[in-house]
Amino acid sequence: MPEAEGRRPAAAPEIPARAPSPLQPRAPSPFVPVARLEAFARALFVAAGMDDGKAATVARLLVLTDAMGRRTHGLAMAPLYLADIEKGRASGGAEVGMAVRGEPDVLKDSGLTAVWDGRYLPGLWLVATAIEQAIPRAAAHGMAAVAIRRSHHIGCLAALAKQAADRGFIALIANSDPAGQRVAPYGGTEALFTPNPFALGYPGETHPVLVDICASITTTSMTRQKHAAGERFEHPWLLDGEGRPTRDPAVLEHRQPRGSLQLMGGTEYGHKGFGLALMIEALSQGLSGHGRKQAPRRWGGNVYLQVLDPGFFAGREAFLEQTEHLGERCRANRPIDPKRPVRLPGDQAAACIERAAREGIDYDAPTRTALNEWAARLGVDSPLS
Amino acid sequence: MPEAEGRRPAAAPEIPARAPSPLQPRAPSPFVPVARLEAFARALFVAAGMDDGKAATVARLLVLTDAMGRRTHGLAMAPLYLADIEKGRASGGAEVGMAVRGEPDVLKDSGLTAVWDGRYLPGLWLVATAIEQAIPRAAAHGMAAVAIRRSHHIGCLAALAKQAADRGFIALIANSDPAGQRVAPYGGTEALFTPNPFALGYPGETHPVLVDICASITTTSMTRQKHAAGERFEHPWLLDGEGRPTRDPAVLEHRQPRGSLQLMGGTEYGHKGFGLALMIEALSQGLSGHGRKQAPRRWGGNVYLQVLDPGFFAGREAFLEQTEHLGERCRANRPIDPKRPVRLPGDQAAACIERAAREGIDYDAPTRTALNEWAARLGVDSPLS
Repeated sequence: MPEAEGRRPAAAPEIPARAPSPLQPRAPSPFVPVARLEAFARALFVAAGMDDGKAATVARLLVLTDAMGRRTHGLAMAPLYLADIEKGRASGGAEVGMAVRGEPDVLKDSGLTAVWDGRYLPGLWLVATAIEQAIPRAAAHGMAAVAIRRSHHIGCLAALAKQAADRGFIALIANSDPAGQRVAPYGGTEALFTPNPFALGYPGETHPVLVDICASITTTSMTRQKHAAGERFEHPWLLDGEGRPTRDPAVLEHRQPRGSLQLMGGTEYGHKGFGLALMIEALSQGLSGHGRKQAPRRWGGNVYLQVLDPGFFAGREAFLEQTEHLGERCRANRPIDPKRPVRLPGDQAAACIERAAREGIDYDAPTRTALNEWAARLGVDSPLS
Repeated sequence: MPEAEGRRPAAAPEIPARAPSPLQPRAPSPFVPVARLEAFARALFVAAGMDDGKAATVARLLVLTDAMGRRTHGLAMAPLYLADIEKGRASGGAEVGMAVRGEPDVLKDSGLTAVWDGRYLPGLWLVATAIEQAIPRAAAHGMAAVAIRRSHHIGCLAALAKQAADRGFIALIANSDPAGQRVAPYGGTEALFTPNPFALGYPGETHPVLVDICASITTTSMTRQKHAAGERFEHPWLLDGEGRPTRDPAVLEHRQPRGSLQLMGGTEYGHKGFGLALMIEALSQGLSGHGRKQAPRRWGGNVYLQVLDPGFFAGREAFLEQTEHLGERCRANRPIDPKRPVRLPGDQAAACIERAAREGIDYDAPTRTALNEWAARLGVDSPLS
């Protein structure tokens, strides 16, 4: 929407905050305070039947994800989650949809390592809970890990890793969905993997470093967005069904044979992305003992989570001494483009979170419409005009 | 050398083994049995002053690396190691060169996590020793980790990870050298990181999967090879001193301002390689508490090593069930090029190892010459004609 209409620019990461001008009258702000958004999302999930504690955690993390600027994985996911909850209810107990009540089954627990069956409970809540359980174990022994099978979608890995990094721990999270096939192995034509995200969060003096990458160049949600908008990618980040590089997102949706997302490294050095994809499948499906072998068809995810305490290695101060020094040298590195200084992953998220706390968060029209439809249906007051 | 002269092709990964023809007379084979090569390399290191146990381990792993087909990091490294040992001796106790005697200093040991000062002892021996110590700990508790500062060069990470994977464990190894600057942060022009390799080895029914990738597209040794041969890269895998992509390996060697190796993802999505580089620096230098902050100038490396026991998660059988299923689906994936079926990382290494055990290993002329010069100097019999 044009700025002439008095709306502030969207909180997209690329656009810096503008100071409000006292001379220019402003239309009512579409920015909504973070606490109000959290309460809204929580009420939606509770109205859909989710336990309140789970709803509070999922709501908090989705809004945090938006605050970090990762809009594809924030409240824009809520309508998809709500639809999947409804799908589960409508099935009359069949094995579909997001589960909303109860606890994961603990299949194994050695004190340092554990395996959970997530029963397709909300992934953000499952992983946040696993982190809460792993942190005291890591604080007592130096490291701890949880492998989760049959989680539901876990959203933004960086938002989850932040929970541990904010408290001085290192968190490593690997995630795959054995029900999804979007990425072919290197040299192959048939989609087999999901994009397989992988995050490492570690503490910093002012805010954590949050590495969050995946084994493919682009993601399923980016490809769907491009396809819906009738756009092509700027670079050939997909393969058609014969394995030829293409910029056309439609190859993933319609064409026969179906195409795939290119591995990180593409045709030149996609063996690197392939290695990362295998690593993430082995950790998340191999260690949890459930995955593509069982060929699940339900939207979900497998997770490997590991927490490390730097205090059990050379110490927290020694850790920060190295990582802060490195961070400073990155930020001071002479940039290729003088207008684009080098930033660390997590820098932008920290700035966006501060801004969201100050100004609230606004949403694009499709997200507002979808959330408002669910609000009306579930009888929840929406703060999104 | 042309095949008409009766020599078998080099054991390079791309070239399949040829069955010897009984009708064609063969010149004496330059292929040397693995055991003879190990004894030769061990004798070289012992003659240079290295403890025999260390020399045996380093020799075994360098020859294994050649057997796996990773020629840049096999016996071709031995002359560099021997020169660095000599540099240390010639310095009269100054802080330079590879150390050859004694043990690492154990700075911390909690039972599951440990920090070692490697004292610039041979990296292959240090990491192999750390793996030997971590395996029983992982077998008792599920996981164990060692962070090593001031190791010497650790060679081929896949050869090391294989030691654990062959015995049913998962090994993760991350490595950086704080004395080296070859890779700039994403968006920057000044080299700051090393290529920062990262390996994950996990067990398989017949042979392990060995993922071994690094945060940059290409490596220092590949770039030096290209430069020495007067060749350019096929793709622009480097940046010049202004951050412009280039195929010219000379930018790393001579030009002012000096260039750098491109991060995995290059200009399009190098933030992914940047994330991986930061992750590896944090694990290897942050957890060991020594690194770029101290600005060491001695050839070396920092290591983070972690061993996991799948038996402490869903179990070894459940792990193999998932990973073997995935491996089969990769290998059966319809290839882009029918002549190039999909292979898993580790497949080629396993085939090369079998072939080396059967036929021995041959070496190119520059490697033979360099090894023979050291053999003559140290009074060791060389099997390399």
